[in-house]
Amino acid sequence: MTPATTCDDFLGGRLKILQPRDGYRAGIDPVLLAASIPAKPGDTVLDLGCGVGVAGLCLARRVPGVELAGLERQPVYAELARRNGVANDLPFEVIEGDLADMPGTLKERQFHHVLANPPYFDRAASTAATDPGREGAMGEDTPLADWVAAAAKRTRPKGTTTFIQRAERLPELLSHAARHLGSLQLMPLIPRPGRAARLVLLRGRRGGRAAFRLHDGWCLHYGQTHVNDSENYTPATACILRDGGELPFPD
Amino acid sequence: MTPATTCDDFLGGRLKILQPRDGYRAGIDPVLLAASIPAKPGDTVLDLGCGVGVAGLCLARRVPGVELAGLERQPVYAELARRNGVANDLPFEVIEGDLADMPGTLKERQFHHVLANPPYFDRAASTAATDPGREGAMGEDTPLADWVAAAAKRTRPKGTTTFIQRAERLPELLSHAARHLGSLQLMPLIPRPGRAARLVLLRGRRGGRAAFRLHDGWCLHYGQTHVNDSENYTPATACILRDGGELPFPD
Repeated sequence: MTPATTCDDFLGGRLKILQPRDGYRAGIDPVLLAASIPAKPGDTVLDLGCGVGVAGLCLARRVPGVELAGLERQPVYAELARRNGVANDLPFEVIEGDLADMPGTLKERQFHHVLANPPYFDRAASTAATDPGREGAMGEDTPLADWVAAAAKRTRPKGTTTFIQRAERLPELLSHAARHLGSLQLMPLIPRPGRAARLVLLRGRRGGRAAFRLHDGWCLHYGQTHVNDSENYTPATACILRDGGELPFPD
Repeated sequence: MTPATTCDDFLGGRLKILQPRDGYRAGIDPVLLAASIPAKPGDTVLDLGCGVGVAGLCLARRVPGVELAGLERQPVYAELARRNGVANDLPFEVIEGDLADMPGTLKERQFHHVLANPPYFDRAASTAATDPGREGAMGEDTPLADWVAAAAKRTRPKGTTTFIQRAERLPELLSHAARHLGSLQLMPLIPRPGRAARLVLLRGRRGGRAAFRLHDGWCLHYGQTHVNDSENYTPATACILRDGGELPFPD
């Protein structure tokens, strides 16, 4: 059964995304993830657990000519991802399957860039969402360790693997990543100046040998509080969300 | 044999520190570490690997009435630490010994706060300093894992354990800390706005159950480059280094 969907604008309308009205709905997180990927035209990209495809399609919109694939376990989301590729005129190979049991069609491929927005909540320590689609995207029945291992395995030597995840889970994410990736770089995403990070971007390279780097935080909003109802994103963040700009890691 | 020493001002002259002229010389790192410890008057404090005592004595100068102990492996440094306590009129119990073989006098004690500035360089992957005192403080023949385990063991339930360490070693430090401590909080120390962290402060609590927190970076200097020869520390950093101020972790 196809659920009720809405069609939502991303990147200031550069991307039209169909997503379930009541299930997991993409916010700014996959957009920030996509903005951070250092892809060049012609690079191959895998969006691991792609949902309706927001992260991958944002990247494909920003970098012309990337070869985009996505893996999604939930059939309804995989089908919407396919339709979103077509509707936005962006080639998008969506593979239905589970990263814990990697489909044969992906098992022999490696990508220049792998990106993933794994579920944020370890259900051993939190409460499930009532909507099963939302729960599939938010709650974790595939452990974070498996996400990291699968992502790293599908990355070419010297290719990048990038995760967005809640800052709370950094110790766990970092310990898994250090096992599979090198040249790790961490970018805290700070809601406002002086606040603790809510999210982190973590990038590694397969076979990388550079030392770990902790970047100064990327600040999402200006000032200490919301003024009226304005979103007051910093100009650099607004450029990512509305104009499809980059979130460059410093050299 | 007593080496040639110099007497140096810390905290704007509030502390006079004798240290070997040619060995490991304390910079701002132990001062920043001490400024971050949330000690109250009367609390017990252990400076693990105290060297000539800069971190512990900075803390004792800021918080009147802390009960300060230090453990130092190198006799020359331990003796200077003792002399520095006396010269600054700050009670300081300096114990000579190795944290890898904890002296009996410390084995049965636990402290409200344990702080440590472990060697920064893993000598499996770097070059030794020629001065043996300097090498003892900079190079690591006690693994970081042992520092973390020893520090946590000497911390009372709900007490704090705090490390300053090079940002490069965060993945390793965090994985050890997550094994022994809870309520971990990470404060990146950013040399200048937008630059990668050079150092990190990591605080945990023995038996703490709060989620990991990643704070917005503490910025040491203003602007993008040194202007003339001025140090151009930010006012909050200058307050720590010159006036003995705090480096408070946000609530």
